[in-house]
Amino acid sequence: MPKTNHQMPNSSESPVTRGPAEHERRTQIIEAAVRSFAIHGYQKTTIADLAKAIGMSTAYIYKFFESKQAIGEVVCARTMGVTSAALLAVADDSSASACERLSTVFETLVERGYDLLDIQPKLHEIAMAAVDEGWASVRTYRAELGEVVRRIVVAGRDSHEFESSAAPAEVCQGLLATLIPFSHPVFLRQTSRQDMLQAAAAVSALVLRGLILRGLKI
Amino acid sequence: MPKTNHQMPNSSESPVTRGPAEHERRTQIIEAAVRSFAIHGYQKTTIADLAKAIGMSTAYIYKFFESKQAIGEVVCARTMGVTSAALLAVADDSSASACERLSTVFETLVERGYDLLDIQPKLHEIAMAAVDEGWASVRTYRAELGEVVRRIVVAGRDSHEFESSAAPAEVCQGLLATLIPFSHPVFLRQTSRQDMLQAAAAVSALVLRGLILRGLKI
Repeated sequence: MPKTNHQMPNSSESPVTRGPAEHERRTQIIEAAVRSFAIHGYQKTTIADLAKAIGMSTAYIYKFFESKQAIGEVVCARTMGVTSAALLAVADDSSASACERLSTVFETLVERGYDLLDIQPKLHEIAMAAVDEGWASVRTYRAELGEVVRRIVVAGRDSHEFESSAAPAEVCQGLLATLIPFSHPVFLRQTSRQDMLQAAAAVSALVLRGLILRGLKI
Repeated sequence: MPKTNHQMPNSSESPVTRGPAEHERRTQIIEAAVRSFAIHGYQKTTIADLAKAIGMSTAYIYKFFESKQAIGEVVCARTMGVTSAALLAVADDSSASACERLSTVFETLVERGYDLLDIQPKLHEIAMAAVDEGWASVRTYRAELGEVVRRIVVAGRDSHEFESSAAPAEVCQGLLATLIPFSHPVFLRQTSRQDMLQAAAAVSALVLRGLILRGLKI
């Protein structure tokens, strides 16, 4: 039986873990999980598989992770963290105009999604589970996308590229919603990269016409 | 064994059916399917269940429908047909401005989605299957949504509410993509109606600012 502790699963923004921070062991388990998720998929991987892969007991793994989902959360958070770091870098890139940064965000989201699936098609499964089950890593990722949008809107208003009459919170909410079709795993399997890039460019152009200060050309 | 014919499943835009157009029998099967999908869900319903419900053999049902999916296609097409007819009526409503028509399309999509799920929560399952498996009824629905968008863009340009410099095909493609989060069943379960309506209003306002002729107020 797994040892219990006082942490509630899914109750915090950080992945639910157990026991002391034995960094190396945790890394070993995560690496085994990444390999198994890539080969067999998230759904078919069990804690017993991971234990076998690293030559430990399942009880030993439960010392570090509450559940398979807790391991999945770490894998997801790591993958989505790389994407959101890339997008935050785009949002903060002062060498580009706010308009360019927004277009690049749309494009980067699409390219990164397809790149990930090209390398690891089975990643789609864990991404879908994460979204369907509302994992903490997904909430964090959404909040980070919101921050990306907010920084670009602020930058565009500060530089007088964007008009400032609309309520910024509503503008950001609208923009974030227009990113959904390009950030949600459900769409990546149904549309080709080329079609998705074209749709992203069309949305980006459409919303930019709404954002820019009248008189400016884009 | 089901009788075979020369129709390929999923190869045409209309639902795949078999045998003579015995309207009444088909209706009876569809009604039984609607009831069973509503109570047990699409996945758990079998052709044998439907045969039992109407006191016929499974072979008899296969005379009319190639597969469970073919029955599901009819149920889906009927439900989505009501939505797209409502949206086309909004697009053609000459008593409203093109701006108002577009806002109403966003709102109607959201309200209709939640209304359907409130009445029949299990409908979500068949909608997800239809989308995941790329049913013909979904392709038809998408084409109809595209037509809704196209008519509003044409109306707005004709009335000089909308600017006309951007390529209309790209504008329509962008608009259609902004409707996705409000028309895809995957999102209806994860967000409250109120939050979804607020997001739809934010996107609608954002894209309208991009569409309208500079100088006009919305």
